[in-house]
Amino acid sequence: MADRLTGERLVNDMTVDEKSRAALVEQVLPVLRAKAEQADADGAFPMSHIELLRDAGLMGLIVPEEYGGLGGTLRDLAAATYAMGTACPSTALSFFFHNTSASRGLLPLEAIESGLFADEEIPVVRAFAEKVLRLMSGGTWLANFASESVKSSSANIAIATTAVAVDGGWELTGEKSFGCATGVADYYLVTARLDGYETADGLTMFLVPRDAAGVTERPQWDGLGMRGSANHGIKLNRVFIPADDALAVPGAFVKMLQCSRGSFVGNQLAITAVYVGAAQGVYDDTLDRLTRKTFADTGKSIAESPMHQVIIGDMTERLETAYLWLRRQLLLETCEPPIATKSEVYAQWRIAKGSICQAAFDVAMGAFKASGTSSATMNGVVGRAVRDLAMGLVMTFPPERGRLEAASVITSNKANELFASVKV
Amino acid sequence: MADRLTGERLVNDMTVDEKSRAALVEQVLPVLRAKAEQADADGAFPMSHIELLRDAGLMGLIVPEEYGGLGGTLRDLAAATYAMGTACPSTALSFFFHNTSASRGLLPLEAIESGLFADEEIPVVRAFAEKVLRLMSGGTWLANFASESVKSSSANIAIATTAVAVDGGWELTGEKSFGCATGVADYYLVTARLDGYETADGLTMFLVPRDAAGVTERPQWDGLGMRGSANHGIKLNRVFIPADDALAVPGAFVKMLQCSRGSFVGNQLAITAVYVGAAQGVYDDTLDRLTRKTFADTGKSIAESPMHQVIIGDMTERLETAYLWLRRQLLLETCEPPIATKSEVYAQWRIAKGSICQAAFDVAMGAFKASGTSSATMNGVVGRAVRDLAMGLVMTFPPERGRLEAASVITSNKANELFASVKV
Amino acid sequence: MADRLTGERLVNDMTVDEKSRAALVEQVLPVLRAKAEQADADGAFPMSHIELLRDAGLMGLIVPEEYGGLGGTLRDLAAATYAMGTACPSTALSFFFHNTSASRGLLPLEAIESGLFADEEIPVVRAFAEKVLRLMSGGTWLANFASESVKSSSANIAIATTAVAVDGGWELTGEKSFGCATGVADYYLVTARLDGYETADGLTMFLVPRDAAGVTERPQWDGLGMRGSANHGIKLNRVFIPADDALAVPGAFVKMLQCSRGSFVGNQLAITAVYVGAAQGVYDDTLDRLTRKTFADTGKSIAESPMHQVIIGDMTERLETAYLWLRRQLLLETCEPPIATKSEVYAQWRIAKGSICQAAFDVAMGAFKASGTSSATMNGVVGRAVRDLAMGLVMTFPPERGRLEAASVITSNKANELFASVKV
Amino acid sequence: MADRLTGERLVNDMTVDEKSRAALVEQVLPVLRAKAEQADADGAFPMSHIELLRDAGLMGLIVPEEYGGLGGTLRDLAAATYAMGTACPSTALSFFFHNTSASRGLLPLEAIESGLFADEEIPVVRAFAEKVLRLMSGGTWLANFASESVKSSSANIAIATTAVAVDGGWELTGEKSFGCATGVADYYLVTARLDGYETADGLTMFLVPRDAAGVTERPQWDGLGMRGSANHGIKLNRVFIPADDALAVPGAFVKMLQCSRGSFVGNQLAITAVYVGAAQGVYDDTLDRLTRKTFADTGKSIAESPMHQVIIGDMTERLETAYLWLRRQLLLETCEPPIATKSEVYAQWRIAKGSICQAAFDVAMGAFKASGTSSATMNGVVGRAVRDLAMGLVMTFPPERGRLEAASVITSNKANELFASVKV
Repeated sequence: MADRLTGERLVNDMTVDEKSRAALVEQVLPVLRAKAEQADADGAFPMSHIELLRDAGLMGLIVPEEYGGLGGTLRDLAAATYAMGTACPSTALSFFFHNTSASRGLLPLEAIESGLFADEEIPVVRAFAEKVLRLMSGGTWLANFASESVKSSSANIAIATTAVAVDGGWELTGEKSFGCATGVADYYLVTARLDGYETADGLTMFLVPRDAAGVTERPQWDGLGMRGSANHGIKLNRVFIPADDALAVPGAFVKMLQCSRGSFVGNQLAITAVYVGAAQGVYDDTLDRLTRKTFADTGKSIAESPMHQVIIGDMTERLETAYLWLRRQLLLETCEPPIATKSEVYAQWRIAKGSICQAAFDVAMGAFKASGTSSATMNGVVGRAVRDLAMGLVMTFPPERGRLEAASVITSNKANELFASVKV
Repeated sequence: MADRLTGERLVNDMTVDEKSRAALVEQVLPVLRAKAEQADADGAFPMSHIELLRDAGLMGLIVPEEYGGLGGTLRDLAAATYAMGTACPSTALSFFFHNTSASRGLLPLEAIESGLFADEEIPVVRAFAEKVLRLMSGGTWLANFASESVKSSSANIAIATTAVAVDGGWELTGEKSFGCATGVADYYLVTARLDGYETADGLTMFLVPRDAAGVTERPQWDGLGMRGSANHGIKLNRVFIPADDALAVPGAFVKMLQCSRGSFVGNQLAITAVYVGAAQGVYDDTLDRLTRKTFADTGKSIAESPMHQVIIGDMTERLETAYLWLRRQLLLETCEPPIATKSEVYAQWRIAKGSICQAAFDVAMGAFKASGTSSATMNGVVGRAVRDLAMGLVMTFPPERGRLEAASVITSNKANELFASVKV
Repeated sequence: MADRLTGERLVNDMTVDEKSRAALVEQVLPVLRAKAEQADADGAFPMSHIELLRDAGLMGLIVPEEYGGLGGTLRDLAAATYAMGTACPSTALSFFFHNTSASRGLLPLEAIESGLFADEEIPVVRAFAEKVLRLMSGGTWLANFASESVKSSSANIAIATTAVAVDGGWELTGEKSFGCATGVADYYLVTARLDGYETADGLTMFLVPRDAAGVTERPQWDGLGMRGSANHGIKLNRVFIPADDALAVPGAFVKMLQCSRGSFVGNQLAITAVYVGAAQGVYDDTLDRLTRKTFADTGKSIAESPMHQVIIGDMTERLETAYLWLRRQLLLETCEPPIATKSEVYAQWRIAKGSICQAAFDVAMGAFKASGTSSATMNGVVGRAVRDLAMGLVMTFPPERGRLEAASVITSNKANELFASVKV
Repeated sequence: MADRLTGERLVNDMTVDEKSRAALVEQVLPVLRAKAEQADADGAFPMSHIELLRDAGLMGLIVPEEYGGLGGTLRDLAAATYAMGTACPSTALSFFFHNTSASRGLLPLEAIESGLFADEEIPVVRAFAEKVLRLMSGGTWLANFASESVKSSSANIAIATTAVAVDGGWELTGEKSFGCATGVADYYLVTARLDGYETADGLTMFLVPRDAAGVTERPQWDGLGMRGSANHGIKLNRVFIPADDALAVPGAFVKMLQCSRGSFVGNQLAITAVYVGAAQGVYDDTLDRLTRKTFADTGKSIAESPMHQVIIGDMTERLETAYLWLRRQLLLETCEPPIATKSEVYAQWRIAKGSICQAAFDVAMGAFKASGTSSATMNGVVGRAVRDLAMGLVMTFPPERGRLEAASVITSNKANELFASVKV
């Protein structure tokens, strides 16, 4: 299986078109890999990556060709974030958050197709959707900001950021606690609640320019891992957004969610591909190192010691487990005709994301144990992998939560809401 | 996803032809299910199943149409053993061992195609191969007997049964310790070593009629599970087999193995489908029971208690894990063009079989814990599943072994031999 | 550490008196061991064991000397059930359920000491308590029956069996679903609720003669394990119990529970000692077998194969883990001065029981995997251990439940009730 | 159980003398805690801690009173490193490595008592031993340096540092790869091999002044955790050590090991107490935080969510598991009369150390998962605990190794050597 593109280890059956898009990703990997350690040490996104990715033509990777994009699908995105994850997980993560913005263009268009919007709503919905897609394919970095630090027991994400109608547009006030490419993206795609609404019907989206008045970055935080992804988030203090840069039709967000084929808002599985890529990276590095290092007395490779055989066997099983869940989810969300109902896809995803991230983290811990004190450093492939992959356990919620959510869906057909609007 | 054939839960993308073959399997399931408990209690294969399966036309399921069979592939076989596993794992197991005989017809034919045999060897090899296939498609039950109780540290299966050349044929002497359909099959397809050979080159195959002189059944043993599969095995005491019923060309067995695309001799993955089917069976039964049973004080279903939610979440993850490994292996061994080298397929299988069987057993233990003392019985779906699925942990070797074997392949490219010839 | 009494493996620091009591247990072990397999096969308690244990003077093992007993404590009981567990877990379990009756004598006496009863209540409470103790020390088998099949979400055990006041005593009606020594014990010590009460204050105890009118045994059930413990339970249909054989003072049961130092009603930890003994038994048997069996090619013991080394290492860790939890709990419940509060002891026990039973079961599964198909039988040490030890996972509730209960105690100081009175 | 000294959570049954020694430890905890975060951030041992610990009189904690020490035992040391571990694991670790030096004084004295040394050897052995003890009780920091980076398949620690006899003493050349208090300790107690010896008989010990000519510190390394323990190690280039500061009697090291009652060289279990202390620290912090933080919608504490209940239950089980192994090992190594043979103690320790460190790390990961992204930082209690406790998995070897070592001891009575002399 020689000369495979990196992403083909995940997506084994790429089409010719997919391979040509994956080749664009392939060419940026060496630079990503070269700058990964420094980005981690600095806790900063390498700003030259913006141009790198833009020049490679990757900003519109999953935007349809009719809107000027490369026409990739979720398969391309997963292959891309996976491949980048083997080189620099932080960059992969930031790139992922840019691409999730595409769903905010594609899903409203699907909702229009499905007849979910009233005739009079269609023009404004379409205009916003197309603007999002054309910005992306034009090379604009569009970071998608949803998460906040407030917690709701009944929903996965609670939104307290509020939009108040003002003359000619909206004023946004709130705080987004975790969003990659803070200070990097050209625009933040911000989810907020319309003032006066208490349900998810009030959820709306706004294109917030990075340098708009009232936008400030939250303080840099000293993350354990994924330190080069600039995920410190923003504060919005009465930020004015013109009406044209908002999708403020009540109910639009919910209608959009209805059109998502699979996990979450769509595309989310590609975040777990970042972790699988990172796990493959530390696995390869560790195997290579341990099969070359030898015992002083026997000359045999350290990898052949009984303990190392056990750990390598376990790491291999864990790595493959991560791939299995991810490939299955990708199949469920992309195959035609569908082989599972939306509810089945959803329950599967609840378990899949935790299982993938846990398995990927387990690979890192296996590498850590197998490599001994000499690799137990902050920097270096192993130490970095432990820290980066630990982040997966909280960023997509721990596997313990996913399994409970799936159990709830299965036994009482009662699922957590994805988003809630919360007044705080 | 209504009205799916049982086997489609495993093989989601069946072709029209596969569905029509799966429909033949579907029709025998009610009888299998009805007789499962009694078969387990008696520790005996229900003899009427022979006719049932033969009449359903299933004996030639994976024999090519040109040899009179149904033309199914490993996909059909896995779907079949899986579906039968949901109804009666013992019968599924016995059926599996019949079907593995097909590889002893198909692989030699492939080896001829690949030019592995000398011209003068070809006729005898072809004749034996075709005989095996035509017997199967004609409705003959052909149990494949390889395993013996002797252990070799360097091979997975050690063969001590010996064939001595005599006038007009061979005399077989030895003991086969684990073979399903003992006393059920019309013929035992016995692997033995040619007297005088000490390597795998001496391995040969013989068609031994059930009632041939010198063939006796070993004593019935009181297996913990899979009790209805008649797996007690046979003793051979100078059993005469005519030359025409033997494939005694030295090296033929090894050449046959070279042609196997994937796991082991070929088809072996279908044994794990039995366990996955059984796991799905006990999972469905348990969910159904626990969501209907209620607490006396609150009236809520027992399945909604915090403990049950945890266990159900875990069971769901374990069950899906079993499917993931199995479906991936099936893909690796059947997809065109291949997406992995034979060595990769092989290393994957080493881990897959243990992971599948462990996950399936874990589902049974989850069902056991969740169901409480009232289901902690010998009989009944839960108690039977615990016992049947425990067998998977030893019949295909424990997962601890598979992971170590994979580690060895990965780190030193040193794999266990599958078969060894042992003089005892 | 030669010539240790079996029980000393658990209780390492026995006093001279404890050793002499343990010696009484030691002498019955050979007979227990000899009859274990048959008892399991028959699914019946060996009736000759009644006389065996009585003649050995063990019926009053933990009854204070002033009431004619041997004066043992929980330490003696745990050492005894552990030692018996290595020989015949079913008998150990039945013996345990007899001994738990002692708490129904000792705890009320403690409650009197603690001033929990009103003066007028004391005579009747004391009379019942002393009767229980004197019966036991006199050699009467007194099986303690609490569990029922009805489930309450808020309590571990729900009691629906009802006592109606009648002339000269009480009439009991109900069903006890799981109680060892059914048809074996001379008396069943039955917990019931007084008609008209809806809280635990209505819980009362009755001495029900085995052959009283209206007492019938529930149908034999075909338990997966612990088959020789006669645990099928009883039905009570308007069984008359004279007032003298009842402790029907409202609130007495709750007051008794308040005096229990540790886990549950007191003594319950000795049930987990049964499982640890059984785990030690199968561990010893397996190690012995595998170190003697050799590979045909190398002559090395099978125990030295890489897979076996992994499994043996894991089994050893699991077995020791079971001991650790059990010894700690025993220390917490018996040491003077106490080193933990009652609430701490209680939270610890919630986790301990599940951890012990899970670890013990894991030892059995390790033995099963390590021993291969030849030991995967119904009978035999390994198959029996798998079945017997599986029962521990449901009889004392699965570990998943214990951990959740502990978490609840820890985070909200909200504990499940032990007993609830339920009207059905 | 109010007003317990911190160390009493581990050693529940302290004597009055032990409590008074533990009180000395207690008083330094606030300062340790206050400087922990900065020490981690700087990757440097807080030099003022030297005086702090010396002034507290702790340098001779486990030196017998007759040599001017406080007369503590392994129980005191474990309680001390545990207590310090709750406040600053790095300092606890460094303090541990100082105290292990005491075994180099005590064990030789025991070996003299046991008659292992010839009469003519005794004076020099005694002189060295007493010098070590008097230095410690006098307040000298004596870091024990054994580990090197060379690996031997047959021993846990391989020694390549070589001592060549020169006029008036010895010249040491080599490198010690992992030793706490590098640049902090007054003396390094260095283990080396005598030039010309190839077995452990050549192992010898030397008191190397921190500032001796030829001693240099290895480069600072950027450890993942335990960053404030100054463990970068030293290089020795022909460092002259006068004969009086050496224990160079051939065989002395091996004789010393023979006198160790328990694990390794003696005292080693106290290193695992560091990790248990750290685990308790992050557990307490997490429980406190999560029970105070509430959901925006329900006002209930976050700790009460189903996922948090599962994780908290698991964390509690893991934390207690760490205590159980540690307390048992402490009992085995200190109780009189002994309750296990040295070989049993040794096998137990092999498993114990890995089980303790794994369980402690699992607590940290539970805290990490339960605390979410907001605590997933480099600094802060949770992030630090993840990094510090990961170190335990490699510093005392992974649990996978310990279990294999125990299996080997059990099945073939073949144990790894602790130390090997290696010529490189």
